[in-house]
Amino acid sequence: MFEAKFSNAGLFKKIIEAIKDLVSDAPFDCSESSLCLQAMDGSHVALVSLKLEIGIFDVYRCDRTISLGLNSGELNKVLKCAKADDTLMIQFQDGEKDTVTFTLEDNKGRKQDITLKLLDLDNEHLGIPDQKYSAVIEMPSAEFKKVCSDIATFSDTMTIIATKSNIVFKGSGDAFTIFLDSLLILYFKRVDFNVKEKVTLNFSIKYLINFTKASSLSPRVRLSMSDAVPIVIEYEIEGNGFLRFYLAPKIEEDKNGMDE
Amino acid sequence: MFEAKFSNAGLFKKIIEAIKDLVSDAPFDCSESSLCLQAMDGSHVALVSLKLEIGIFDVYRCDRTISLGLNSGELNKVLKCAKADDTLMIQFQDGEKDTVTFTLEDNKGRKQDITLKLLDLDNEHLGIPDQKYSAVIEMPSAEFKKVCSDIATFSDTMTIIATKSNIVFKGSGDAFTIFLDSLLILYFKRVDFNVKEKVTLNFSIKYLINFTKASSLSPRVRLSMSDAVPIVIEYEIEGNGFLRFYLAPKIEEDKNGMDE
Amino acid sequence: MFEAKFSNAGLFKKIIEAIKDLVSDAPFDCSESSLCLQAMDGSHVALVSLKLEIGIFDVYRCDRTISLGLNSGELNKVLKCAKADDTLMIQFQDGEKDTVTFTLEDNKGRKQDITLKLLDLDNEHLGIPDQKYSAVIEMPSAEFKKVCSDIATFSDTMTIIATKSNIVFKGSGDAFTIFLDSLLILYFKRVDFNVKEKVTLNFSIKYLINFTKASSLSPRVRLSMSDAVPIVIEYEIEGNGFLRFYLAPKIEEDKNGMDE
Repeated sequence: MFEAKFSNAGLFKKIIEAIKDLVSDAPFDCSESSLCLQAMDGSHVALVSLKLEIGIFDVYRCDRTISLGLNSGELNKVLKCAKADDTLMIQFQDGEKDTVTFTLEDNKGRKQDITLKLLDLDNEHLGIPDQKYSAVIEMPSAEFKKVCSDIATFSDTMTIIATKSNIVFKGSGDAFTIFLDSLLILYFKRVDFNVKEKVTLNFSIKYLINFTKASSLSPRVRLSMSDAVPIVIEYEIEGNGFLRFYLAPKIEEDKNGMDE
Repeated sequence: MFEAKFSNAGLFKKIIEAIKDLVSDAPFDCSESSLCLQAMDGSHVALVSLKLEIGIFDVYRCDRTISLGLNSGELNKVLKCAKADDTLMIQFQDGEKDTVTFTLEDNKGRKQDITLKLLDLDNEHLGIPDQKYSAVIEMPSAEFKKVCSDIATFSDTMTIIATKSNIVFKGSGDAFTIFLDSLLILYFKRVDFNVKEKVTLNFSIKYLINFTKASSLSPRVRLSMSDAVPIVIEYEIEGNGFLRFYLAPKIEEDKNGMDE
Repeated sequence: MFEAKFSNAGLFKKIIEAIKDLVSDAPFDCSESSLCLQAMDGSHVALVSLKLEIGIFDVYRCDRTISLGLNSGELNKVLKCAKADDTLMIQFQDGEKDTVTFTLEDNKGRKQDITLKLLDLDNEHLGIPDQKYSAVIEMPSAEFKKVCSDIATFSDTMTIIATKSNIVFKGSGDAFTIFLDSLLILYFKRVDFNVKEKVTLNFSIKYLINFTKASSLSPRVRLSMSDAVPIVIEYEIEGNGFLRFYLAPKIEEDKNGMDE
């Protein structure tokens, strides 16, 4: 038997909203200590990694390690029914037919049960190698969201250049540039502005925009970067978990060759 | 001559918004004591019945019984022009060509006249039989609206089960259930929770959703049900009238046969 | 070299939003004393005339008279990136390749540079003849916007009839009429309600609707009319400029002939 109860359904709602367009079939791995999800997006370019530790839940019980495969679009519909003050209980009974029950309940005697069918997902777990990063930057998640959305207006890609003194976000060509300079360290109250060596990476803006849907989960976002390895974009979840997105940088050999 | 004046155009606006998608050609029956409308929806499944008594109007004069046929889409356009504090005068002059004039006026000297052509509607009046109902339930109209909209996310039909102790709203299969239990009698401050015998009825959710557009007319809605007769969903209008929707339950013989 | 700095990017944003659907290729004429734009709409029915005097800018420098051709859709994208408190600097360097740089900057060290390519526009300047108008009416710009939008619901054209005692706005036929009577002179606190002789003019409502996008620029709008000449619809800009729209009245000889 598995059961997990959120004191507020809104938190899980924000998580599912942030990942549903990347991952349609979501394998939730339930263990004694945490609820995890790890999945590639449909085009196998980005990786989503979610971890919710037991401390996040009001009630948590997991008798044996299981993987519950759920369609994130259906899950999103369930959570759209939640009112602001609803609690959410997720339940799976071993003996039962392959369904998970979601129970939304308010403190006035109103109760909704919604049952979803389990999917049979063939999930290969990817080992994510331990990595030391050349640059780790923390900034307000709303600021990062605006940077991505502004650049997306003019460009399909975004180049991030992190040096010891500032960060520059650029669109393609010289057409669009956003500077965040060292003065901002003060303004942003950055805990980490830790750049050991200059990093220049180029990404598909479409994916970055998608990741920033998680901005409501946390007031801050952490970008961890090294040359030629995927960037990690991390939103902490209430001190008891995280939602991380990994995205490989674009290699621009061909394009540079053609521009010159 | 017929004239009727609302001190606030907003009331009529809400009424027309609630019925315009059900009834495109609306025959308004004007008599000495009230303005009434009774019409089937386009597919002849639901019946709309509106009654506005003379007490609702600031000015009301009807020299002889007449029926004014109006297109509810056009009527809706007229009412979209109304500002919050506008009065609305509806006028029909016998001698005139077949038009009705709507006059919106604010208290600052601004006046709008809008003229609509009358339609020649062939309206058969249906006698609605007097009926004793097994279950009469009153609840907040916003609550009923949310129940319908949540269930519509997952299901094409809604089953309402009213017993002496609680009401259950269910989607198709066991996938979606909303319980409102007896505790709620207190919470909802229900005037009537009058169930003489258990009733189980199944409806097309599409129609129910449509009816709940009337929720802004009244803080409460009354559901009157008996087995095998149409449900009545009623919104009272300022103590001087009502908007009622009648909907026949679905008969599920075939479906039950197939499920077993 | 040319540079012009707005203390608040929002003003220029409103201007561009108001004209972008009328004028796609916008030739900005920069001189020592002002930034001007004059252009016909795509179908050569309406004329847009913008004048921003030097007093509007925080910084203004123009070494020689130049015309900067910009696509107003692209310009609109630039301005959508502006936050409420951003300043906007527009810069063009003579020696440079044909680009204009827009710099949005907040007071917290965040800076965005956006570069747009100049267009090579073949702009013929139309001499606008000096004209005495039979009727000059000032009214709240929000009121004029509502009049246009209400009439557009029912009609493709709008007739404006200005007499010494009132103004009437009419849709086609007798179907829709809005009266603003002399009482309103008080209500509207009109500075000018100056009608020397009765004027009756008919316009395409589509264009009027488009012009009223400028309503956020100024709390009041001025309509200047004479029979058989274009109406001028003018929004003053912070006492240091204006945005004017000219629209030729429709000549209805054919239509009248056919109606009778």
